[in-house]
Amino acid sequence: MTAKVRTRAVVVDTSESPFAMLRPLAVGDVRLSDSVWEPRRRMTTEHTVPEQHALLESSQRLDNFRRAAGKLDGPFYGRYFNDTDVYKWLEAASWTLAVDHDPELDALVDNVIQIVGDAQLPDGYLDNFYTVGQLDKRWTNLTVTHELYCAGHLFQAGVAHFRATGKLTLLDICCRFADLICDTFGPAEEGKTPGTDGHEEVEMALVELGRATGNRRYIDQALYFLDARGHGLVGGDEYHQDHVPFREATAVVGHAVRQVYLTAGAADIYAESGDESILAALNRLWENMVTRRIYVSSGIGSRWDGEAFGRDFELGNLRAYTESCAAIGSIMWNWRMLLMTGEAKYADLIETTLYNAMLPGISLSGDLYFYQNPLADDGTHRREPWFDCACCPPNLARTLASIGGYLATTSDEGVWLHLYARSEIDLALSGGRVVRLNVETDYPWDGKVRVEVNGEGLFSVYLRVPGWVAEPVPVRVNGTTQSDRWAPGCYVDIRRIWKAGDVVEIDLPMPPRQVRAHPYLFENAGRVAAMRGPLLYCLEQADNPDIDPRDVIVGPASAFKTEQVDGQLGRTTVLRATASISPLAGHWNDQLYVLADDDESAGVAPADITLIPYFLWANREPGRMEVWLRRDG
Amino acid sequence: MTAKVRTRAVVVDTSESPFAMLRPLAVGDVRLSDSVWEPRRRMTTEHTVPEQHALLESSQRLDNFRRAAGKLDGPFYGRYFNDTDVYKWLEAASWTLAVDHDPELDALVDNVIQIVGDAQLPDGYLDNFYTVGQLDKRWTNLTVTHELYCAGHLFQAGVAHFRATGKLTLLDICCRFADLICDTFGPAEEGKTPGTDGHEEVEMALVELGRATGNRRYIDQALYFLDARGHGLVGGDEYHQDHVPFREATAVVGHAVRQVYLTAGAADIYAESGDESILAALNRLWENMVTRRIYVSSGIGSRWDGEAFGRDFELGNLRAYTESCAAIGSIMWNWRMLLMTGEAKYADLIETTLYNAMLPGISLSGDLYFYQNPLADDGTHRREPWFDCACCPPNLARTLASIGGYLATTSDEGVWLHLYARSEIDLALSGGRVVRLNVETDYPWDGKVRVEVNGEGLFSVYLRVPGWVAEPVPVRVNGTTQSDRWAPGCYVDIRRIWKAGDVVEIDLPMPPRQVRAHPYLFENAGRVAAMRGPLLYCLEQADNPDIDPRDVIVGPASAFKTEQVDGQLGRTTVLRATASISPLAGHWNDQLYVLADDDESAGVAPADITLIPYFLWANREPGRMEVWLRRDG
Repeated sequence: MTAKVRTRAVVVDTSESPFAMLRPLAVGDVRLSDSVWEPRRRMTTEHTVPEQHALLESSQRLDNFRRAAGKLDGPFYGRYFNDTDVYKWLEAASWTLAVDHDPELDALVDNVIQIVGDAQLPDGYLDNFYTVGQLDKRWTNLTVTHELYCAGHLFQAGVAHFRATGKLTLLDICCRFADLICDTFGPAEEGKTPGTDGHEEVEMALVELGRATGNRRYIDQALYFLDARGHGLVGGDEYHQDHVPFREATAVVGHAVRQVYLTAGAADIYAESGDESILAALNRLWENMVTRRIYVSSGIGSRWDGEAFGRDFELGNLRAYTESCAAIGSIMWNWRMLLMTGEAKYADLIETTLYNAMLPGISLSGDLYFYQNPLADDGTHRREPWFDCACCPPNLARTLASIGGYLATTSDEGVWLHLYARSEIDLALSGGRVVRLNVETDYPWDGKVRVEVNGEGLFSVYLRVPGWVAEPVPVRVNGTTQSDRWAPGCYVDIRRIWKAGDVVEIDLPMPPRQVRAHPYLFENAGRVAAMRGPLLYCLEQADNPDIDPRDVIVGPASAFKTEQVDGQLGRTTVLRATASISPLAGHWNDQLYVLADDDESAGVAPADITLIPYFLWANREPGRMEVWLRRDG
Repeated sequence: MTAKVRTRAVVVDTSESPFAMLRPLAVGDVRLSDSVWEPRRRMTTEHTVPEQHALLESSQRLDNFRRAAGKLDGPFYGRYFNDTDVYKWLEAASWTLAVDHDPELDALVDNVIQIVGDAQLPDGYLDNFYTVGQLDKRWTNLTVTHELYCAGHLFQAGVAHFRATGKLTLLDICCRFADLICDTFGPAEEGKTPGTDGHEEVEMALVELGRATGNRRYIDQALYFLDARGHGLVGGDEYHQDHVPFREATAVVGHAVRQVYLTAGAADIYAESGDESILAALNRLWENMVTRRIYVSSGIGSRWDGEAFGRDFELGNLRAYTESCAAIGSIMWNWRMLLMTGEAKYADLIETTLYNAMLPGISLSGDLYFYQNPLADDGTHRREPWFDCACCPPNLARTLASIGGYLATTSDEGVWLHLYARSEIDLALSGGRVVRLNVETDYPWDGKVRVEVNGEGLFSVYLRVPGWVAEPVPVRVNGTTQSDRWAPGCYVDIRRIWKAGDVVEIDLPMPPRQVRAHPYLFENAGRVAAMRGPLLYCLEQADNPDIDPRDVIVGPASAFKTEQVDGQLGRTTVLRATASISPLAGHWNDQLYVLADDDESAGVAPADITLIPYFLWANREPGRMEVWLRRDG
């Protein structure tokens, strides 16, 4: 293992993609020291990765590989896509190796790769659900049984492992399987079997495999799978995004994880091909999602039935499905859109999704997970250690293990800082010049960001001014306030001849704010959600034991005070206010509907309330939680 | 066939039940001539019943019986419970025969019964899903495959057929199967197999079979099946109402049809046994349902996933599931509660469920059905001619075919009029005295009801004053206003010595009214639903082509005017008002969430709106529909 190899441990490698503006950095080139991501990244390294390995054993995920290799008897155990838990774990472990190289973990990964490799058939096929006992049925049910989805997770793991360690062991396994897939599926006129997978994933994985190996064939195969949709090959329905050809799609529909894995793959394909009709579809789908089908948490996929996107404004709180994996898929998609375009709106959404939709998926203790992330609860929704369908836990692990990779990028013009967190970041400009950014900040608790730019020569430093900032902000360079003010939702572009030790400072004001929802989102009518900086807040009974959050009526955001606390939830910033508590009028105890004119409200009483960041909810004793609170006027 | 036999065609026979107050009348003893039920009953007789018979053939429901009888080759076709479509059709046809005896239909029914009987095995077993090809697996999966549920529908059909025609053909088939079931299932200590069905239905059917045959064993078996729940025999979960013993249940949960079929069966068992802990559970469940888990339409079961009751106040409109069968199940339950107690609240709920939750399930044309009945729609939810899971169409048919049976009953004290509709009703008091009620009214369009009581001697006439009436109402007897005024939600009790031609008159005021929902039902906050008499109203774009119902802001109910119209929807009463239309402010076109303070409303413009009875929606061109409308103040 050399530093050079670790340098290439990038999450999505657009460094040579002709239609991408930004080039990623390696996850190992970011040394985080903030109070949100670094503790969780370390927790992932020290606890989650080893504990999930134990779960892969105890839940027979690895035994299925041993059975396929003939080293263990018995039938395939569990769900048809259980192999992917192993692959996602391998990916998480690979990113972990890229940051904190641990020989023991390296050896454990090698061992798991050996187990995986032993299960591969001579022709390259690798899917234990079929290999164990029903190989004659392979490739017969792509709509349902996820063979290509499983392959995709294998490829992502293989690419990550190669980039993190320089080893070819898993990548070779991937290529053998990918070659079989390329030989098997394609247009009938080429003598191949038309097909695509009921659960998208292989598309983005094949593009990355193409990037990692330099084999264009894999990218072409991804394009084939993309355009195979919409012709009835996999259900013909919205659930599988098979209702229309991708290039004609106008709305995010169906199974949410599938949908955003599809758009992530399409974005990867666009970055390589520049096909404008793919980009146009991506833009339409993104607009539909962010203006009609996303929660204030940035979570997506509101329906329990089908784990699916609902119709426009179908965004119920108590039964919000908002799968942790869907949030991760949205981050994957938006990261690719950002790499392609350099547009801050994608980084804004990545940031709020990371904090408010992905992060709630894992407990402070690092070993309990949410599959669903409702925006209101009666105290019964609690995180669990594992799931029969265990997609979320290793998905969270691989994201947290690679979190550094999302902080910054480069472009031809300079270095880009997308997410703020205390850190040291090494970036290589084209031509080989290295820039080290020392980021000093207490973000997300405070909006002051000080960046020491250690680099030489002419280039730009791009700093994101998040869309939630209320007004254009000034920037200081080496203590001098610049004349320009920078609008929210854009990147500050400071282009100058830099010398080591130059300092850029930006102060992103973070007063508590309240947002309202679109009038057609009736469930939130008359209510507001509290936010501060990138963080969504909620009211949880653990802080407000005698209050039913549904009875709370808040005043304007200006009445909310921030307070730094350090307790059960670690160091965090809470919001405090005096609210009105409106107990139910007597008739509501025994009636669900009353005459409109009978609805006299009972008196209200003042009470002090405390709101916590939504990503910290459900880490204490159970109780009611609400994100949306009634607002007085 | 004799008139006497037809007289006994009662829907639920509590005439000898020791713990029931009311005794039902025969469906053939009601001659409807109103404008809502009689046209639909006749439509059922003339169109729905014959057309559904054709569908039973074309969808291979009958072929499955022929296959079981060895008269046709091939595997069982369709869902495991498809036999029940035949049974429910037989029941609908039987009620039809009870009212309008048609020799052709009688012969057709005999033919279907022959087909059913041919499929019965020598030991009495009758379930084609197992008989065709996998008989060795019978009774092995009660949780999922509905064998006893299917049996229950068979028994209901057999009882109905016997009561309607006096024939024993189908009843004998039932008894043979019921005897096998009684011999098979029971406590282990009796040498039987412990078990109960994953889908309740057999409980109420067995009680009715016991009543029809005088065989107490069937009633005991129903009690066994009731108390077998809550011990993990069928899933151990809320979905199957197997999470707690029935007598300990506190909330309506899980699959909604299952839940109310269970409570209907429990009520039947109580009527025979007088077991107070069953009654206490029934009362708890009823209170939970009507105060926490029912729509303003009286529909129940809000969740698509699991076709289930949601948690308290989980009553979303656009994705309301509110299965037509669940409404029918609720009517069945409430009918039994009414028979037991004579309490008007049950008749109130039966009435609103009939009009606003069951009736929307069938089109004006009588051949298209809703499975789900949402309370808001974007124009995409349309009725369909049949379903792969076709439980609702024949359930609607059997209910409409027997609708007369719900109008009136007798008790020891006299005659009870529960539902108002223009009709002639023959009732037999204990002792054999016959009372004929001639009901003159244009209900539900008008609240004036004139009842000519043709009977002799001392008895009471009970007339229901619905709970939706605003104030106590007077009653006139032979033109003279009585001194008492009668409170809503009770029965007027006019006890006197009657003579033929006496006339009772009551006038139930029906001003348009508006109701609000409980504050915890956030989706309806700031909105009202319009009602008039027993009818729920909605705003449909077909009447308001240039208006998005979501933009409508209504004034108080007093501003709503009624108007009788006769058009595409038949004769009906619509509500008209001038409302404010609040078009979306510009920022809502491209944003889902905005700062609370940025939410400036655009100007409002007045517009005339028309509301129609909710049960008539989706009978014209597709468009948006909303039950809940924003209210100004």
